[in-house]
Amino acid sequence: MNPVEIIISKRDGKELSGEEIKYFIEGYTSGNIPDYQMSAFLMAVYHKSMTADETAALTTAMLESGEKIVFDSQDKKYIDKHSSGGIGDKVSIILAPLMVACGLKVPMLSGRGLGHTGGTLDKLESIPGFRTDLSMEEFKTGVDSIGCAITGQTPQIAPADRKMYALRDVTGAVESVPLICGSILSKKFAAGPNSIVFDIKCGNGAFMKTIEQAKQLGRSLFDICRAMNKGAAYLITDMNQPLGKAAGNALEIDESSAALRGKGPDDLMQVVFSLGECMLRLGEIAEKEKAIQLQKEKIADGSAYEKFMKMTAYQGGDTACLEKNKPLKPARKVISVKSNKAGYIRSIDTYRLGRLIIEMGGGRTTVGQPIDHSVGFIIHKNIADKVDENDILMDIYSNAKLSDEYLAEAFYSCFEIVDQDVQPPELIKLKYRGTG
Amino acid sequence: MNPVEIIISKRDGKELSGEEIKYFIEGYTSGNIPDYQMSAFLMAVYHKSMTADETAALTTAMLESGEKIVFDSQDKKYIDKHSSGGIGDKVSIILAPLMVACGLKVPMLSGRGLGHTGGTLDKLESIPGFRTDLSMEEFKTGVDSIGCAITGQTPQIAPADRKMYALRDVTGAVESVPLICGSILSKKFAAGPNSIVFDIKCGNGAFMKTIEQAKQLGRSLFDICRAMNKGAAYLITDMNQPLGKAAGNALEIDESSAALRGKGPDDLMQVVFSLGECMLRLGEIAEKEKAIQLQKEKIADGSAYEKFMKMTAYQGGDTACLEKNKPLKPARKVISVKSNKAGYIRSIDTYRLGRLIIEMGGGRTTVGQPIDHSVGFIIHKNIADKVDENDILMDIYSNAKLSDEYLAEAFYSCFEIVDQDVQPPELIKLKYRGTG
Repeated sequence: MNPVEIIISKRDGKELSGEEIKYFIEGYTSGNIPDYQMSAFLMAVYHKSMTADETAALTTAMLESGEKIVFDSQDKKYIDKHSSGGIGDKVSIILAPLMVACGLKVPMLSGRGLGHTGGTLDKLESIPGFRTDLSMEEFKTGVDSIGCAITGQTPQIAPADRKMYALRDVTGAVESVPLICGSILSKKFAAGPNSIVFDIKCGNGAFMKTIEQAKQLGRSLFDICRAMNKGAAYLITDMNQPLGKAAGNALEIDESSAALRGKGPDDLMQVVFSLGECMLRLGEIAEKEKAIQLQKEKIADGSAYEKFMKMTAYQGGDTACLEKNKPLKPARKVISVKSNKAGYIRSIDTYRLGRLIIEMGGGRTTVGQPIDHSVGFIIHKNIADKVDENDILMDIYSNAKLSDEYLAEAFYSCFEIVDQDVQPPELIKLKYRGTG
Repeated sequence: MNPVEIIISKRDGKELSGEEIKYFIEGYTSGNIPDYQMSAFLMAVYHKSMTADETAALTTAMLESGEKIVFDSQDKKYIDKHSSGGIGDKVSIILAPLMVACGLKVPMLSGRGLGHTGGTLDKLESIPGFRTDLSMEEFKTGVDSIGCAITGQTPQIAPADRKMYALRDVTGAVESVPLICGSILSKKFAAGPNSIVFDIKCGNGAFMKTIEQAKQLGRSLFDICRAMNKGAAYLITDMNQPLGKAAGNALEIDESSAALRGKGPDDLMQVVFSLGECMLRLGEIAEKEKAIQLQKEKIADGSAYEKFMKMTAYQGGDTACLEKNKPLKPARKVISVKSNKAGYIRSIDTYRLGRLIIEMGGGRTTVGQPIDHSVGFIIHKNIADKVDENDILMDIYSNAKLSDEYLAEAFYSCFEIVDQDVQPPELIKLKYRGTG
């Protein structure tokens, strides 16, 4: 085998064999294949894509490039969840302990904010002391003892992905479905789950703007998992407005904590329960209404919240802060955004809401930048809601980096209010598609 | 400007501005843009191609990356000629001195054998002492004093092309029309011509197998020259059989020398005169029949041959060897290939003829390999010729590296002889397309 011939085959749209892909990824990881051949290969993949079998081979090779955790390769109860990202999406934080309470094990590898969206690790770090840099041993012990742990990629996990991602970033090869899938799955599976449930977000606050794009990503992730002999399921859920009421790191922890104590907003809980149902079905614990019922019970009896407290304590987080039942990290001021007129909310520019949180300091514009966990917003009105003049649409939690006037105007301009009534978007746009 | 954005624009099929292309090529030449970004860019160009304006900007940037010769940027008499390559194609060696005798200046930058084809520099080096590594000063002085010189690329000429070509070779980005055109033209124009005439070879011995491919290449080269405000013309000529009778380095010098003394085979002279006509038209010296007539006169009166002798002497070649009127470098033995049957020649596997010369040692399989200038063949029968049993089809000039039996059989198998009579291929497949 020779790297140039492999590049030429992919360039010409041929399907590569598992051996060819393994050879290329191993050669790149060891340094025998230089960056300039990998970048040509990645650009050829960008243009000619990859089949599920090719992407499975790519993912496996990336996964095998580093250390990996094996809990029990036959045990269907080890399940992770992945979201393609949106605004106010704190589902992982609620779902991981809830699923443990229902009988699953959740070894969860998460990420930081990307583009306009927030990241689970950043949110968890709002809790004083919470560590998202667990060693692989600490992570494994956490899952073994508590049932779940949420941490970031370590240098030992999928080094090929780390090297390839850095190269893609500087060679215009980020937005490629097989490369995105390979990057996500190689990390996720290195942490030891036997199945993954995907929440593909779709709408103006998601990376996938159309249902067709969302279906393509969901179907690709699903097919690759199958080709890797892993369990998988996916949902497509709405991201044309924030999920839940809260957006911003500490505010989302407050809402997650409330949700685990039975006080979560309806839309958030519907997404949590739908994803939970997928996980319980793959884990062969319960299906349909029984699965929903089980989740409600585990929230009502306090066991889901208890698992969250245990996980937080294990990861070094200050549980006393959470128990106090008041805001985790209050911002300096709260600015109410009021409607100028009566009408119905037709649309919310969710992408812009995400960008505004970053502008307030709640997210990063460059890698490694510190973030302000306390800023964000609580939204009170949703698409299709009827509003009167002077109704409060949202409260902005600001540390006064930006002026009140600027923030009020900028956030208000994200709302489109019309005279005619409006149909709300469908929250669960595509129901369970999975192997279970 | 930023390299990633430029890669992304090209990846997405957008037309790049001249400034963007200049920035990218200059950055690469200076080392500010690394190989891995250039290889991603080249693969994007491979998939999305470039317009004539983009390729002109690319060519200009590559050309400007090194030293260049300027004779007189307004003088239409400085004209080079380029062939896309074939078997027995010794046209440049005849045409350069002939055009000088007709009143043009020919600053000619040539190459070595590529793939199955021979190269002008290798052929000229059959003449003892002939130097094809002239410095830029020597080259310029030669053109100024004699009217023509033929030399290879120096390290000072188009270093961006040298660096990019080496990278393309190891990243699967060789076969791209804009990249091929940019590479050819940046070198050619660095040597100082104001116009170029292209001989696009078409057939089973050429790189362009079909008339459509040949037209695409010719049209691209022509459009890019126009976008660079340079004169250009192209012909498409047949390469389904060797051009002239001789193939092999020294044998082609013998035939070129004979052609310049009025003893060239008809097909060869027709191609020479047609290309000469293009050059004389672009140089505003003569057109059509007058241009052909002028060339015949300059051969008949000995002035074309005299220019060839002068150029040879200037470049260090032993003119006495050429004057002797006997083979320049006789091979050890001559093997006649005879027909097994009577019939008509329907086809000749010209690609294979070229590969067989290389196998005999007359060409390279790796860069820098020494070559045997004396081997080759003289072909006696062409497509559509009637042959009787035992007629000699060709004589092989061998230095006995390969057995006589192997050679006779291998060369014979290149001929397809059928019972029905056959139409000869059209020699000039596309007549003058040019700016003049």
